[in-house]
Amino acid sequence: MPSYLITGCSRGLGLEMASQLSKTSGNLIFATARGAPTAALQKLIDGSAGRVIYVQLDAESPESIKSAVAQVEKHLNGKGLDILINNAGVMPFSMGGVATMDNLSSTFSTNVLSVHLVTSAFIPLLKKGTEKKVFNVSTTLGSIAHAATYRQTPAPAYAVTKAALNMLTVQYSLGYEDQGFTFIALSPGWLKTDLGGEGADLPVADGAEATLKIVHEKGKEDTGKFFNIKKAGWGNATGLNYYDGKEVSW
Amino acid sequence: MPSYLITGCSRGLGLEMASQLSKTSGNLIFATARGAPTAALQKLIDGSAGRVIYVQLDAESPESIKSAVAQVEKHLNGKGLDILINNAGVMPFSMGGVATMDNLSSTFSTNVLSVHLVTSAFIPLLKKGTEKKVFNVSTTLGSIAHAATYRQTPAPAYAVTKAALNMLTVQYSLGYEDQGFTFIALSPGWLKTDLGGEGADLPVADGAEATLKIVHEKGKEDTGKFFNIKKAGWGNATGLNYYDGKEVSW
Ligand SMILES: NC(=O)c1ccc[n+]([C@@H]2O[C@H](COP(=O)([O-])OP(=O)(O)OC[C@H]3O[C@@H](n4cnc5c(N)ncnc54)[C@H](OP(=O)(O)O)[C@@H]3O)[C@@H](O)[C@H]2O)c1
Ligand SMILES: NC(=O)c1ccc[n+]([C@@H]2O[C@H](COP(=O)([O-])OP(=O)(O)OC[C@H]3O[C@@H](n4cnc5c(N)ncnc54)[C@H](OP(=O)(O)O)[C@@H]3O)[C@@H](O)[C@H]2O)c1
Repeated sequence: MPSYLITGCSRGLGLEMASQLSKTSGNLIFATARGAPTAALQKLIDGSAGRVIYVQLDAESPESIKSAVAQVEKHLNGKGLDILINNAGVMPFSMGGVATMDNLSSTFSTNVLSVHLVTSAFIPLLKKGTEKKVFNVSTTLGSIAHAATYRQTPAPAYAVTKAALNMLTVQYSLGYEDQGFTFIALSPGWLKTDLGGEGADLPVADGAEATLKIVHEKGKEDTGKFFNIKKAGWGNATGLNYYDGKEVSW
Repeated sequence: MPSYLITGCSRGLGLEMASQLSKTSGNLIFATARGAPTAALQKLIDGSAGRVIYVQLDAESPESIKSAVAQVEKHLNGKGLDILINNAGVMPFSMGGVATMDNLSSTFSTNVLSVHLVTSAFIPLLKKGTEKKVFNVSTTLGSIAHAATYRQTPAPAYAVTKAALNMLTVQYSLGYEDQGFTFIALSPGWLKTDLGGEGADLPVADGAEATLKIVHEKGKEDTGKFFNIKKAGWGNATGLNYYDGKEVSW
């Protein structure tokens, strides 16, 4: 039964993935959050029969990550970590257009540097794991090829940093493919969370379920790829790779 | 006769582009450097019959950029700036592999944030220009699609930040296409400069000439695209878009 570490579990997609994974007995889920557990995360932990473990982690802080690794290592008691899901992220807007963007560096730190810091710190534990799989939660808004589709979404820092995250994923994939690792970028769908807003396509439960399907089904032969979720009824709705489960163009 | 501003003219490709452009009478070239002009840049300025103007500019410093804009504006005396070439950049190595990368933020600042700061600051002068063209010097190493080709080059921060630069280029292109602007990312070839090293494919003069061909020939219909240089004898040497003058896959 695999162990998972998921960043950004205070709410949204991270919390929902942790919740769904906790339904399977034998799963062990390290659910990280920057602050103390939110009410929702605490409720999940309390009802999880010990399957969900809270880990304090600020993904932009090397010291915080170091403590988190030590805590996870202790808990695993000699075993490795099987699956890492880098989920934490932010989507700030620049309503005045790209030239007014004043959040490029901070967004890069939260969406890209954090993934590098967390991944590199957990590599030793992942090496000892049975799956050696890392999933980076990206978005079709990070696809350079499809950028024109999203021209009405005033989030240039999000687009730039998620494109960078995609390249980071591929760099890790190339660096670790001869050691049996899998690194995958995925787009979880437009989901009704604080980030996605109420007008989004799908409830977060649907996005989490479809994302976890990618987590479970994809392996070494898919390392370095960028997948969209699959959701019946949404395939090719716009002529894009739209919830069709296929690779997204870079 | 157009006016140009080129960043990173202390040496390498920037210096060589400034030099080649200065051969045409009527051209006006603002050649920027962080420090005082290098001997090579000073020599170019002295022999340029006033066509090459030195502008102090640290592309990562908003204050420095602000002073540079004021200096250029004064010199243009009511006219606009026609063409901006964001050329300054760095390629640090991570010899121990991607997990040891300790220069991601600083490389992002130099290769991406700088381009945003410079471009946004010069937009008002570019709006008054006759060409409204901006060229961002990227690289095929920033192509996510081709990343596996370059797996032997231990420069993950370079790859990640140039992919981000490509998306930044597209975000500007989308934001300004209805105002007659052209934003293009280009790969200048592997050139014998301090950055490219002695083992590179081409002398810097060839890379500058081929890059300036892109600068002169590409316009509005190509905005948001990513071009390789064209160099006879090199087309499709590796099955990639290799100096064939074509678009590079993202
Ligand atoms: N929702 C969508 O439509 C959608 C679509 C495509 C991709 N995504 C991606 O899916 C991921 C999750 O998004 P979501 O919709 O669940 O967003 P959300 O509801 O806003 O939740 C974001 C999570 O990330 C955490 N976080 C933010 N900055 C952090 C940092 N510096 N260190 C540690 N944690 C941090 C937040 O923790 P705090 O509570 O501490 O702030 C929170 O748990 C993101 O990467 C997002 O880009 C979402
Ligand atoms: N050479 C190649 O094979 C090759 C291939 C593909 C793409 N490129 C791209 O071509 C561009 C020029 O490269 P090059 O080969 O000419 O490199 P280079 O010889 O190392 O010159 C780099 C230039 O960038 C400037 N620069 C660096 N950081 C700066 C900053 N923070 N602010 C302002 N200026 C800064 C340097 O100025 P200082 O003297 O002040 O350091 C120098 O003038 C880069 O963007 C590079 O990524 C080069």
